[in-house]
Amino acid sequence: MNSEASAVKLPECFSSVIPGWFSEISPMWPVWMFLSSTYGKVLVLDGVIQLTERDECAYQEMITHLPLCSIPNPKKVLVIGGGDGGVLREVSRHSSVEKIDICEIDKMVVDVSKQFFPRVAVGFDDPRVTLHIGDGVAFLKAVPEGTYDAVIVDSSDPIGPAQELFEKPFFQSVAKALRPGGVMHSAAFSLPSFARKVIESIDRVCRGARRRRFRIYYYKMYIRAKFSITTPI
Amino acid sequence: MNSEASAVKLPECFSSVIPGWFSEISPMWPVWMFLSSTYGKVLVLDGVIQLTERDECAYQEMITHLPLCSIPNPKKVLVIGGGDGGVLREVSRHSSVEKIDICEIDKMVVDVSKQFFPRVAVGFDDPRVTLHIGDGVAFLKAVPEGTYDAVIVDSSDPIGPAQELFEKPFFQSVAKALRPGGVMHSAAFSLPSFARKVIESIDRVCRGARRRRFRIYYYKMYIRAKFSITTPI
Repeated sequence: MNSEASAVKLPECFSSVIPGWFSEISPMWPVWMFLSSTYGKVLVLDGVIQLTERDECAYQEMITHLPLCSIPNPKKVLVIGGGDGGVLREVSRHSSVEKIDICEIDKMVVDVSKQFFPRVAVGFDDPRVTLHIGDGVAFLKAVPEGTYDAVIVDSSDPIGPAQELFEKPFFQSVAKALRPGGVMHSAAFSLPSFARKVIESIDRVCRGARRRRFRIYYYKMYIRAKFSITTPI
Repeated sequence: MNSEASAVKLPECFSSVIPGWFSEISPMWPVWMFLSSTYGKVLVLDGVIQLTERDECAYQEMITHLPLCSIPNPKKVLVIGGGDGGVLREVSRHSSVEKIDICEIDKMVVDVSKQFFPRVAVGFDDPRVTLHIGDGVAFLKAVPEGTYDAVIVDSSDPIGPAQELFEKPFFQSVAKALRPGGVMHSAAFSLPSFARKVIESIDRVCRGARRRRFRIYYYKMYIRAKFSITTPI
């Protein structure tokens, strides 16, 4: 991994940035790392903050425990994205879970997390975890029907590489991959304008053939939204 | 409310404090308010930070939605403490809820929140909310059996005025006040050393006469812990 601290000029609004850190251009999208006096190490993908060392737990807990506590005894969990490992760390706290699959599209996110965020990447150490590097949309299409109790989509914004994770075909794949009574939970946006589109997309799936068989929840935590879709019990 | 900014000397570690704000001594305990360049307005009770304007939502959402989403269609909710109104704000997002009682021991917390944290205190505006100023322990003792679907304990540390909220008699009152299948969720500590005592106290209640009728969850979010006790379904 090359250190190229001088290659990227950070916006002036990053007033607490401590100079001397690195940036690196992934083959997929710009990956930045910087050190903030307030939030510790910060990971930026495609210009959007994804992870800050000092407050990451609030996000990881909300996106993980809310769905897993809303169903009894989850056993098989799939994480789409989440390459920093934080969601894995939280999923592994559930003793009922027997198998945790994760499909992350960018291996560099995993590598950066393991190198700079060891308390987050510790999630990969759980023996129940299997890491798949690849496209989450394709991965889900190949999943046999009714495989998972929970699917957690811990992605970047619904633009660029993650766009398909917020469109109808993907949500249909999720519904198929879930067992009856299973739950999906998704990080949805860092810009409020994305929220409506994502809600509408899920809503179209829900209002399709099997109305009343899903539930949607919407939360505002920092600048993200979460949704739960529960397939029929 | 008198402005006495010069009356309290803040610790040097509060390096981001913007001078000129006020402190006020409540009849019950020291209540401080200060303005931080990073976290906005900050409320301190008894020397412990209770609320920061910029990140309060993460705490309020976790302590509220986790229990309310873990049971179907909660209708009657009791909040013990929570005088800033933030938990009320989140509870009110649940359309199934018909009645929200809150019992806060210190009216000054409510007044300070309404004056300085209007986006938090907005929770009091919901017509389903009834505010009771008084001792939560005594309030719960007088509650008829099986009244509430959920009891959320949003208190300060298990020392001083809040100590009784973490002891066996209180948890027994909670269990009695809950309907079968109801849930309790509690903020537990700001110092890790408190956590074990609280867990043990809940555990003693759970392991009492009716083992397997409770579930305990433990989360680390910032410096707090949450527990859920589910009475038999």
